[in-house]
Amino acid sequence: MNNINNNHKIEDATVKLDCPISMPKASGFLWNKRMVLQVNCRGYVNAQFMQPEPRKYSYAPNIEEKTFIQPEHSYFSHHPGRFFYIKDEDQQQSFSVPYEPMRVKLAKFSFVQSASEIYWLIEHLELKIKISLSLTANDVVERWSLSVENLRKGEGKRNISIYPYFSIGYMSWMNQSATFDEQLNSIVATAVTPYQKVEQYFKNKELKDKTFLIADKKPTSWHTNQATFEGEGGLHSPDALKFLQLSNNDARYETPVAIYQYRESLGENQSVNYQFLFGPAKDNTEIAQIRDRYLNSSNARKAQQEYDDYIAQGKACLTINTDNTEFDDFVNHWLPRQMFYHGDVNRLSTDPQTRNYIQDNMGMCYIDPTVARQAFVLALSQQHSNGAMPDGILLHAQAELKYINQVPHADHCVWLPICLAVYLNETGDVDLLTTPIAFSDSDTPKLFSEHIDLALNWLVKATDHRGLSLIEQGDWCDPMNMVGYKGKGVSSWLSLATAYALNTWCDLCEEYGIQIPLNKLTEYRLAANTINESVNTYFWHEQWFARGITDNDRLFGTVNDEEGKIYLNPQSWAMLSGAASAEQQQLMIAAISEQLMTPYGVMMLAPSYTKMVEDIGRITQKHPGVSENGSVYNHAAIFYAYSLYQAGENDLAFEVLSKILPSKALAAKSGQLSIFVPNYYRGAYQQYPEKAGRSSQLFNTGTLAWLYRCLVEELCGLKGGNGGLYIAPKLPSHLNKISGQRMFRGAIIHFIIEKSTQITEIEAYIDGEQVVDNKLTIRGNNATYQLSVLVPAHD
Amino acid sequence: MNNINNNHKIEDATVKLDCPISMPKASGFLWNKRMVLQVNCRGYVNAQFMQPEPRKYSYAPNIEEKTFIQPEHSYFSHHPGRFFYIKDEDQQQSFSVPYEPMRVKLAKFSFVQSASEIYWLIEHLELKIKISLSLTANDVVERWSLSVENLRKGEGKRNISIYPYFSIGYMSWMNQSATFDEQLNSIVATAVTPYQKVEQYFKNKELKDKTFLIADKKPTSWHTNQATFEGEGGLHSPDALKFLQLSNNDARYETPVAIYQYRESLGENQSVNYQFLFGPAKDNTEIAQIRDRYLNSSNARKAQQEYDDYIAQGKACLTINTDNTEFDDFVNHWLPRQMFYHGDVNRLSTDPQTRNYIQDNMGMCYIDPTVARQAFVLALSQQHSNGAMPDGILLHAQAELKYINQVPHADHCVWLPICLAVYLNETGDVDLLTTPIAFSDSDTPKLFSEHIDLALNWLVKATDHRGLSLIEQGDWCDPMNMVGYKGKGVSSWLSLATAYALNTWCDLCEEYGIQIPLNKLTEYRLAANTINESVNTYFWHEQWFARGITDNDRLFGTVNDEEGKIYLNPQSWAMLSGAASAEQQQLMIAAISEQLMTPYGVMMLAPSYTKMVEDIGRITQKHPGVSENGSVYNHAAIFYAYSLYQAGENDLAFEVLSKILPSKALAAKSGQLSIFVPNYYRGAYQQYPEKAGRSSQLFNTGTLAWLYRCLVEELCGLKGGNGGLYIAPKLPSHLNKISGQRMFRGAIIHFIIEKSTQITEIEAYIDGEQVVDNKLTIRGNNATYQLSVLVPAHD
Repeated sequence: MNNINNNHKIEDATVKLDCPISMPKASGFLWNKRMVLQVNCRGYVNAQFMQPEPRKYSYAPNIEEKTFIQPEHSYFSHHPGRFFYIKDEDQQQSFSVPYEPMRVKLAKFSFVQSASEIYWLIEHLELKIKISLSLTANDVVERWSLSVENLRKGEGKRNISIYPYFSIGYMSWMNQSATFDEQLNSIVATAVTPYQKVEQYFKNKELKDKTFLIADKKPTSWHTNQATFEGEGGLHSPDALKFLQLSNNDARYETPVAIYQYRESLGENQSVNYQFLFGPAKDNTEIAQIRDRYLNSSNARKAQQEYDDYIAQGKACLTINTDNTEFDDFVNHWLPRQMFYHGDVNRLSTDPQTRNYIQDNMGMCYIDPTVARQAFVLALSQQHSNGAMPDGILLHAQAELKYINQVPHADHCVWLPICLAVYLNETGDVDLLTTPIAFSDSDTPKLFSEHIDLALNWLVKATDHRGLSLIEQGDWCDPMNMVGYKGKGVSSWLSLATAYALNTWCDLCEEYGIQIPLNKLTEYRLAANTINESVNTYFWHEQWFARGITDNDRLFGTVNDEEGKIYLNPQSWAMLSGAASAEQQQLMIAAISEQLMTPYGVMMLAPSYTKMVEDIGRITQKHPGVSENGSVYNHAAIFYAYSLYQAGENDLAFEVLSKILPSKALAAKSGQLSIFVPNYYRGAYQQYPEKAGRSSQLFNTGTLAWLYRCLVEELCGLKGGNGGLYIAPKLPSHLNKISGQRMFRGAIIHFIIEKSTQITEIEAYIDGEQVVDNKLTIRGNNATYQLSVLVPAHD
Repeated sequence: MNNINNNHKIEDATVKLDCPISMPKASGFLWNKRMVLQVNCRGYVNAQFMQPEPRKYSYAPNIEEKTFIQPEHSYFSHHPGRFFYIKDEDQQQSFSVPYEPMRVKLAKFSFVQSASEIYWLIEHLELKIKISLSLTANDVVERWSLSVENLRKGEGKRNISIYPYFSIGYMSWMNQSATFDEQLNSIVATAVTPYQKVEQYFKNKELKDKTFLIADKKPTSWHTNQATFEGEGGLHSPDALKFLQLSNNDARYETPVAIYQYRESLGENQSVNYQFLFGPAKDNTEIAQIRDRYLNSSNARKAQQEYDDYIAQGKACLTINTDNTEFDDFVNHWLPRQMFYHGDVNRLSTDPQTRNYIQDNMGMCYIDPTVARQAFVLALSQQHSNGAMPDGILLHAQAELKYINQVPHADHCVWLPICLAVYLNETGDVDLLTTPIAFSDSDTPKLFSEHIDLALNWLVKATDHRGLSLIEQGDWCDPMNMVGYKGKGVSSWLSLATAYALNTWCDLCEEYGIQIPLNKLTEYRLAANTINESVNTYFWHEQWFARGITDNDRLFGTVNDEEGKIYLNPQSWAMLSGAASAEQQQLMIAAISEQLMTPYGVMMLAPSYTKMVEDIGRITQKHPGVSENGSVYNHAAIFYAYSLYQAGENDLAFEVLSKILPSKALAAKSGQLSIFVPNYYRGAYQQYPEKAGRSSQLFNTGTLAWLYRCLVEELCGLKGGNGGLYIAPKLPSHLNKISGQRMFRGAIIHFIIEKSTQITEIEAYIDGEQVVDNKLTIRGNNATYQLSVLVPAHD
């Protein structure tokens, strides 16, 4: 099972899996600005690169649909992968590493993800094998290495054959072929991206339609014809391996593959090493450039260093030590790494959904706030002058709104002040607020703060006669698309989020002295109150807030519903917006604990829908317990944790937060390694208990920034404010001490937070001197502090 | 190898393959008006049904792109299939039939296609197995039966388990699941077709999103979870088979599959039989209806009879006996069957390309001219009042132009008079010409003949200053899309086809006394001559006609080109249009024989392009030797054969024609059974000789109607005319006799055509009396004739 290393240097953090069978979908991932790979422990790989839209260079065996990344990705024998067959020629025994496609039980196996590398350590038939994969900082190329060492004692030379097998797959019905190019020492597969309209020809002209596998050593033989290689034996026992040498076969309008054979003779403890470069290219010139840039060992070291440096940029502002090394490792290494992936490359989308883009950049505030600053400015430059935000942010000139971004959602404005809060807390950079920015439909710029005003005004206006927010074809919950598609349906969550956004903006203006007319503040506070009251009037039902009122004027998300009785989001946000009284909060929390809490986290609704509800929409058609239809949808779970912290429910908040993290203890159930937060764990806990807890294996999620915010601002209670850092840790009962480091506006704060039975209020000390009002004023760049915080212990 | 039965009753015609390895892509096909299946000899199936656009119910293991049917379809282990695992429980031995996925060498194997059934006869481990598949006349359901008989002598009862395995595959990322329904005795997989826009919900609402496998016998156990069934053993050795019983597993947002287990105990010569129904349904009510309609044995017999009757409608007007039973079988059974598939269901497209639709219905003239009549009227009702024909004919209200039909082609008008000729020849129905028909853009009807005039006028106008036809973004050759996309490029073929269309119309008017103004006829003849002259002026180059002049004013398809030196179509159509003199014809034929002729047929151009030519287009980007880029593209080959017949080149015509038919002798190369004409055999014979001759395995092709026309009107020389049948057989040198039957305008003509050294002109006799002018006047319906034809023998 997965064994989490607790080394705290980011570059050394590793997560290891010692068995290819127990968690067959367990995977790691690597990326740079131009590509991303999800690599499964058994050797399957899902790779895509941007040119500018996501494309493949290692394809399925059939014509796959171009689609966004799906949860619970399914594997099958001819799924794209990278394998190495190994044959002991003396004993006529074969196996494949890392595991697929022969699936021979290996003497030793481990699959390891480090920050910037994925590797396998394998022993079998007295051969010691290391396979390693890394990327480059800037190119679209997989850098593979393989070493094989003979461990057999005193029997002289062993004759083995090693066959790297890299899937290329069905490239194109127009043209696909492959052969070995001796000059490049590379297999080169050539295709023409299929098209029919002449204008597409010019668009496709610059595409990287070739796939190469460059080798550093001349192979004994090669093969590029998938069907012929496999023969009747099948991928698990290919015919071609029965012969002494491969037949150097071309693929000519036949499914290509890249296979080499290396025949080696190894004495005791003797080893061989290979380097392979795999990726797409436009032409042979580009392949030669890639080879020259990365192939020899000094270039490879340099490339690795550059890639390490790139990944190392994903350090965030907090490092902690608790008594739980698994937790610490995740917080210190894997969470910032995943958050950096989101913030730096925007999930490798050219049109990220506006709410994702803003929240992903909220995470970036903890890593590199200058990136977040630019992103907020870019997002606002695509705002309509009426205040409305678009459904997606276009990141380059050719980008267009695709998939879900073609469906009108009503919530995008909400995220602006909320995420701005994190930016200001981290930077204190109020200058941003006076930056002039134009609009999508007008070149006349307005100040950043005026853009926020417009967004809030738009939200306040986008309400019905009761002051409730119209949901259009979705709010945060994308597939809730038929509640209001006729123009009448309203969302409790969106109403509450609007109130919270208004209050947040007012809080920010007050905290940071942002210049907006005083009557505006009063107006916004009033509007928030009015919304909160209206939500109470129309949505409070027995013990919790309902989810919406549909076009048919039907209240839903109450005990009167057979399915979808209770939704998590309205409760969380009623706590944030101020709509819920202390008494209501307790009722809601009790209902959530009873109906939504599971061993795997808190579900976003229950019971999951099992049939279409035509005035709710697509969410009710998703599989029960999957995605928005009642999974432990971590983005919603972290909203709940954050709101619990605001309500002072520190124990419950920490419980909800902890369950979001993948854990060793639940890995057998989740099937996932502790290297990323998945977008969901299966829910429908009452309906399908045996499937509950299973990870989506999908590492794109809006959870991260909020999770990090909870850790920084709530758990450790080291939250930025105007001119300093507020100190107010919220340790759960069972946690007595956290030490660590907080980077804040250029300063380094070494902290120890400890429980004490001697005090009743939090006390903070710098070098033995108590901090006034628990607000630490920062002296400036590179200042270092030793902060000691005492927290009252309740027993 | 394939062994062609020479039984001449259509319902008994069979083609058999005795090995699953020698031709792994060999396949048969079955269809009705709502579905089509291509069934591979090893158990893989490609099925689609119309609702109204083509959809699947047995899917790939990943999200496949919806696309038109591709040539040289590729298979892989998890390709959708229908298999039966069989386990001898006493001896713990397993195998699978028909062959996949275990690929155990079977003691006896045969794969058989009959007109309305596909079946396998297998023996292994002393078990005799028959698997059979047929369809129904009207529903979307596969009707499977399986029988297993114990052949082992004197060892008492044998315990075996039989496991039907029907792929369901990855149905949907929104929702997919499967379980066994006891009431229906059916596995039912449920999915929601993925969508994101609300309007799509209403479109999708009536889709058949369930897949069922109904069984006639209660299974011992069942399984619906693909990954769990397979386990680490893989599809070729699934874990679930290692246990006494399957575990009755659901699939819950997991890839579904339909598997039963039947544990049986069989004495000597004892057998068991099963019936299975597999297909899509909207809901369980529909599944119950399908079960009630087809499951029990009397219903099954009735269903088979209805389906036999449906397929038997695919009888055409000619039956022949030569000394070549393989040839006769193909002409008598398989060709009409395939032609009927094209004409009756229009390749299961809702927007057939106009030229395909018209030519497919030209084939229907030989089977059921009333269908062709309606089709011509429908096609003309979608003509623009300026004479232009659309790129596709919409067959129902929701249909829209897709794929290649969104690209403007200039040739669609050409096919009207050409195909009308066949209709008139077969029926003499000149009344059609005076049928009033409206236009796509005008409700004011014009006569059928006026529509033809408009089409011809449009063609004559769509020419440049030289009188050459502008090619727009393609003519008959779809991917020749950049010759004229800037508006200047012209096509020699289209110019010649225009001339031929003009002459054909004039010939028809003269033959059938069609009423059009006399000056029109003169005008059309003149226009044809002018075009022919212009083609000679601008395209004749050394020994043949070039293919076009591009937007860049570049002549191509000549010796000056490195690739694409010579194209077949301009030569064929220059013979048809009258552009080529006798001397030119001989030069062209010699060049074709030298450069385009191969053992597998005549290529459509040579050498195949190996790189993009930007003023020719997409054809040059296709793989060399594949599809239009220099394959033996049978549609072009049959044009050549037809033109050779017009030129009196009977031997060469027959040779070209014969090579179009799949043959036993070349099956090892083509990989195809003799049950359909493929759209191409690989060409690029000089460039890739080892791949040449391979079949596309694609049974959609415009070849058929022309092939049949050659057989009826040219080879047998029994061509209809005004008031009778012209008798002018064109036997090749090596063929001395053809006997057979010709159905013609309600009469039945039994004929014997024989060579005679005694004569110098063809002589025809009815009951010993010579037919005047070799034109047989038909007395009317149900008349029967004994026709004897003597053909001069040259020695």
